[in-house]
Amino acid sequence: MSADFWQRFGLADRVALIVHHDDLGLTQAQNQAYLELGFPSGSVMVAADYADQVQGTDIGVHLTLTSEWNAPRMSPLTGGRSLRDSAGYFWKTLPQAWMHIDPHEAEAEMRAQIERAIALGIDITHLDSHMGTLFHPSLAKIYLQLAMEYRLPVALPENLDEWLSAYPSLIKAIRSLLMQSALPKVNVIDGYSTPNASRCDWFLQTLAKLQPGVYHFIHHAALPTVESQRIPDWQSRQADLEALQDADVRRAISRFPLLTYREVREALRAS
Amino acid sequence: MSADFWQRFGLADRVALIVHHDDLGLTQAQNQAYLELGFPSGSVMVAADYADQVQGTDIGVHLTLTSEWNAPRMSPLTGGRSLRDSAGYFWKTLPQAWMHIDPHEAEAEMRAQIERAIALGIDITHLDSHMGTLFHPSLAKIYLQLAMEYRLPVALPENLDEWLSAYPSLIKAIRSLLMQSALPKVNVIDGYSTPNASRCDWFLQTLAKLQPGVYHFIHHAALPTVESQRIPDWQSRQADLEALQDADVRRAISRFPLLTYREVREALRAS
Repeated sequence: MSADFWQRFGLADRVALIVHHDDLGLTQAQNQAYLELGFPSGSVMVAADYADQVQGTDIGVHLTLTSEWNAPRMSPLTGGRSLRDSAGYFWKTLPQAWMHIDPHEAEAEMRAQIERAIALGIDITHLDSHMGTLFHPSLAKIYLQLAMEYRLPVALPENLDEWLSAYPSLIKAIRSLLMQSALPKVNVIDGYSTPNASRCDWFLQTLAKLQPGVYHFIHHAALPTVESQRIPDWQSRQADLEALQDADVRRAISRFPLLTYREVREALRAS
Repeated sequence: MSADFWQRFGLADRVALIVHHDDLGLTQAQNQAYLELGFPSGSVMVAADYADQVQGTDIGVHLTLTSEWNAPRMSPLTGGRSLRDSAGYFWKTLPQAWMHIDPHEAEAEMRAQIERAIALGIDITHLDSHMGTLFHPSLAKIYLQLAMEYRLPVALPENLDEWLSAYPSLIKAIRSLLMQSALPKVNVIDGYSTPNASRCDWFLQTLAKLQPGVYHFIHHAALPTVESQRIPDWQSRQADLEALQDADVRRAISRFPLLTYREVREALRAS
């Protein structure tokens, strides 16, 4: 279905980029990086303390059922016992989350996060999943159902094998769910785990060799503030920020049409 | 009862100070100010995202049922509907909180906050109340009960009229509750609303004229970081930090015995 869908955009034989800012709302450092970079697309963690200010033109909800660091540490919006550890926070790891979470309680939490985003005045353009937690089959089903119910596109990876390589046993079930879904797929790219010192080169090399397709290009740009430096991966966030401020990287990005989830959402709603 | 209690400390005819850091855990900026100042006493907001690191020797729980700014904005740990606004956050103002909150749901939330502090490894030495929300009669009753149950002292203002001056109709009921309570009372002082530019002078003048008694001396010191500057009163927090770093203020404080809630707690438990 994806090829047909992107064909209608005139994008089937071209490269199209969604430059996507993950983890908005997590810190003020992340929000300020969004404002400084000027790319419209990103998704907000409404369970975090700084979600109020994220008011761009292409903002989704970064659905969150895990909180991996000691600080900032997030808690569920809803009361479900299965969603939380003994201190009442979200589980830290994917295996913990997948072992404990009751899908009914997860659904209530995901709905509460979407409803909070609406209450914050966000005209939600898409959904995505923090740490890929929602790519467990029992949760992916709900994720896709909510997307259909709210008529929102979702960041669904075409390149699933690569993206779920740490959890090969899930790939078959997820692939089957994604194949059944009417939602368009994207190629998910993320430089997160590439060396920070050469992040800029990685961006340039990756952009130079893109084959025709629609790319959801994840970054986690954040200023290296006092708060951001509590996050163990803060240097990766700073490396993303610096790479996306680099003139050569910005020139390389400008060679491709910048797609937004707002356009995808409108096309979905019209179809 | 207070006079007897403080007599046992040998403090009845002297000045004793608890220099108390409010709102720990709210931001990294607040936590770093605590580490830099070196005063042991403070209380942590466990509903905020930076509560993990607050590991001093005299740490209480800053029980929170309101969240007054747009960011950082806190949510209840428990599912009670009456505790939250339409976006799922704590109510912003005291009148909203007092109008809506169901005392049973408040009790569950207060217990969850105490239990989270314990789960975070904090050896809780006392309880206090963010924005004084718990000085509504229906909530104060629970607050005092929980203090007795956990055998913890509470920041109970002797100078109630001054402290609740914005809500004169509550004073009589609260006074009656406090009189019945076996917990010792303190004189609460807070420079929060004094002019920032002369905060240092205010500290010096206030310290110079203290009459014998036990003083719970509130401050909100925080570094003026990117995150802290989202809080409308950040300059007051910075003024507190600078005043408490001032050599004259520190000398003035050092003239009095510095009391901790840990000592008060141990005396309560022994009595």
